[in-house]
Amino acid sequence: MSDQPVRAAFDWLQAHEQQDRDRLAKLVAIPSVSSDPASAEAVREAVEWVAAELRRIGFADVTVYETPLHPAVTARLASPIAGAPTVLVYGHVDVQPVEPVAEWASPPFTVTERDAKLFGRGVTDDKGQLLMHLRSVEALLATAGGPPVNLVVLVDAEEEIGSPSLPALLADNPWLGEVDLVVVSDSPMLGINMPAVGYSLRGLVYAEVTVSALAGDLHSGQFGGAVPNAAAVLAELVAGLHDADGRVAVEGFYDDAAAADDAERAMLADLPFDERTWLDGIGARCGTGEAGYSALERTWIRPTLEVNGIVSGHTGPGPKTIVPARATAKLSMRLIADQDPHRVGQRVVDHLMGSAPESVDITADYAVSSRAVSTPRDHPSTAVAAEALAAAFGRTAYLIRDGGTIPAVALLQSAFGLDTLLLGLGCPDENKHAPNEWLPLDHFRLGPRALVLLWHGLGGGLR
Amino acid sequence: MSDQPVRAAFDWLQAHEQQDRDRLAKLVAIPSVSSDPASAEAVREAVEWVAAELRRIGFADVTVYETPLHPAVTARLASPIAGAPTVLVYGHVDVQPVEPVAEWASPPFTVTERDAKLFGRGVTDDKGQLLMHLRSVEALLATAGGPPVNLVVLVDAEEEIGSPSLPALLADNPWLGEVDLVVVSDSPMLGINMPAVGYSLRGLVYAEVTVSALAGDLHSGQFGGAVPNAAAVLAELVAGLHDADGRVAVEGFYDDAAAADDAERAMLADLPFDERTWLDGIGARCGTGEAGYSALERTWIRPTLEVNGIVSGHTGPGPKTIVPARATAKLSMRLIADQDPHRVGQRVVDHLMGSAPESVDITADYAVSSRAVSTPRDHPSTAVAAEALAAAFGRTAYLIRDGGTIPAVALLQSAFGLDTLLLGLGCPDENKHAPNEWLPLDHFRLGPRALVLLWHGLGGGLR
Repeated sequence: MSDQPVRAAFDWLQAHEQQDRDRLAKLVAIPSVSSDPASAEAVREAVEWVAAELRRIGFADVTVYETPLHPAVTARLASPIAGAPTVLVYGHVDVQPVEPVAEWASPPFTVTERDAKLFGRGVTDDKGQLLMHLRSVEALLATAGGPPVNLVVLVDAEEEIGSPSLPALLADNPWLGEVDLVVVSDSPMLGINMPAVGYSLRGLVYAEVTVSALAGDLHSGQFGGAVPNAAAVLAELVAGLHDADGRVAVEGFYDDAAAADDAERAMLADLPFDERTWLDGIGARCGTGEAGYSALERTWIRPTLEVNGIVSGHTGPGPKTIVPARATAKLSMRLIADQDPHRVGQRVVDHLMGSAPESVDITADYAVSSRAVSTPRDHPSTAVAAEALAAAFGRTAYLIRDGGTIPAVALLQSAFGLDTLLLGLGCPDENKHAPNEWLPLDHFRLGPRALVLLWHGLGGGLR
Repeated sequence: MSDQPVRAAFDWLQAHEQQDRDRLAKLVAIPSVSSDPASAEAVREAVEWVAAELRRIGFADVTVYETPLHPAVTARLASPIAGAPTVLVYGHVDVQPVEPVAEWASPPFTVTERDAKLFGRGVTDDKGQLLMHLRSVEALLATAGGPPVNLVVLVDAEEEIGSPSLPALLADNPWLGEVDLVVVSDSPMLGINMPAVGYSLRGLVYAEVTVSALAGDLHSGQFGGAVPNAAAVLAELVAGLHDADGRVAVEGFYDDAAAADDAERAMLADLPFDERTWLDGIGARCGTGEAGYSALERTWIRPTLEVNGIVSGHTGPGPKTIVPARATAKLSMRLIADQDPHRVGQRVVDHLMGSAPESVDITADYAVSSRAVSTPRDHPSTAVAAEALAAAFGRTAYLIRDGGTIPAVALLQSAFGLDTLLLGLGCPDENKHAPNEWLPLDHFRLGPRALVLLWHGLGGGLR
């Protein structure tokens, strides 16, 4: 390929940076928290905003797909180059809750620049990364008549709650499967300006357990010592979920979990990853977890069980001397190949039900988000993407896994047999799902350049 | 004594029942939650309301005593009978928080009658019981020129937070110690229409522990499995507070705890208490607790440690896949003679600090409410009170302990050497400190009669 169209697109991107920042600010300002029923209108507003943006840029067939919960958007754009391959770009406009709001240094729904970073809910997960794709396409439309690949765009608004409507959407739109590759930017690079191509995601299954010990909270003086305490029982149940070696103590939890491959473990050990620096970045005194594995291995190639939240009894200011009647814990399990999320969820539920003492009633259930998913490390798109990232960032690009979960990737694989290129443009310590979510300003600027190079690379040789 | 003044006072009480219910409704309507800084004005309003009520009835020297937190009230009333003994009546107008409000079947600050019970925050603890005393005095003033004992009234508004200002109040008002006996109605009888005289209260010390594992909540996919989880660490700490026999596993917790006395254990075993009925009343499947003790023994003659509340991470609706950064548990320990609350509090704190893994920071502290306190079982007032209760309720009156704590009782004993008669007029399953607090309508009606008889009994022979 000639350098000319690339340089023109880069120039266009640089000239339009302020407009791009304004658009990100507008999308982040819409509080599209998909897990909160009170935010349903905001989620729809974000979807409509993206649909309008796709139309403005020049996408065709922009369609808002209605679901029982939050709508999604599909669109397509033909390449000016005949016979170009077709790429499906998947992203999402819904975000995680912003609580605890008091821990945000700037308002969560206002994009704020500090220390060469953009802060705000969704700047990296995934509004910011989705908009990088739209910018790369707009730049190529403005400077070269369009991208050298045909594009299909699928924008989800239920990603943060497990994409429950996506299977029906895929079944209703089989044309989405008529593509050569899926590209998703919804994961971190290896660090700031340390580009990386991802080839694997963990699966995810949620569980929730509630202990009911009494009809209502009781006075701890009149009853304390003689009746079951829901908080104490739940604490025992939660403490029993791991053994002293940091392994999950649920019977059968590790069944079907693929053993680590020595070549891959050696590759991971060679990555320029310093655990102490990583821990310092998140304010942790030391790492913990399953004995016998490194930090990267624990988050990438091993399944885990985490307590996401726990609540019981009096949690307000001051003392309240009660025996709590009820206690609830939320759990999530990240899975690796070849674990079946339903089977793992049921084993966790069975373990909890079987561990509860006679003195209490217990309810436990699980909900499946996704299986783990991988793309072969030698997939042809991997080398193309690594080259595009390396050129845009001027640094070596690595091959990595991601510990997170994007249900759409597994669904697109099972529905249409599609492989996905994980072209994450975030950072490992970006506070995704937490207060003060951020994206490096460098990634905001260089990400669309990498995508311009990616479209050129794929257009030149994927088919 | 002649029956005449008693009968006249009973008739007066019956004729004024509606006025008395209106007054209870007014006092309960004031949301005087002493632990909530936002309710400070309401607490003062309740104090002023009681002061005005004491003046209306005819008490002298009604004084609102200012403290660094919530004010208290003192007042006195001379008996028309020369040389009559003097009794100090202690009660409180502050109440516990009402959360979770959704679990109240009727509004917490509105007295509501259902099933021959009055419901509302404070109807039994302690607004309702305090007003019974005032009604008994008003009846005797209206029908007999006054009670046959001199009365001193001390109304606290910090009882539910451990009466922190009471030591200074007692030091500033040494005349409060110039009495022959303290009478407190702030505890349960043995059941509905099962009157009882109490002779012992447990002590109380609070503790709070917070685990800090991370600078902020983290994404459970990017970090789960490799970093400390505050909720999981706290669950282990809480689970480690008891052993498999239900004993508190804190080293030295039982030091100085007086061994149970065989005669008393035999007496307790003879009480008409049916654990199954008691458990059914509170919706518990079975009793639990320290091995080797009955339910009454566990709540009355043994020290305990209860989790009052626990909170960490995501507790709202829907999933949020985070590794929580912080987790907090609130604990309270009920003590028996001769445990020192400071020593027990420090041992619990030391245990928690010593049990935490290297991976987290932990803060723990304790706050003392009160030592345990007892009145000799053969105190002369006991038999007088039992006779008064038996006559008013037409039932046998029992001798019981109470598992709760009233800091004033210990403070009046240590400051002035005063013994206290625990003339509780509530019920064991009254939902004290919990949603749907209630008082039997029979107790509301018959309690003041028992007090009229008590004043007559004490006036006839205490000195």
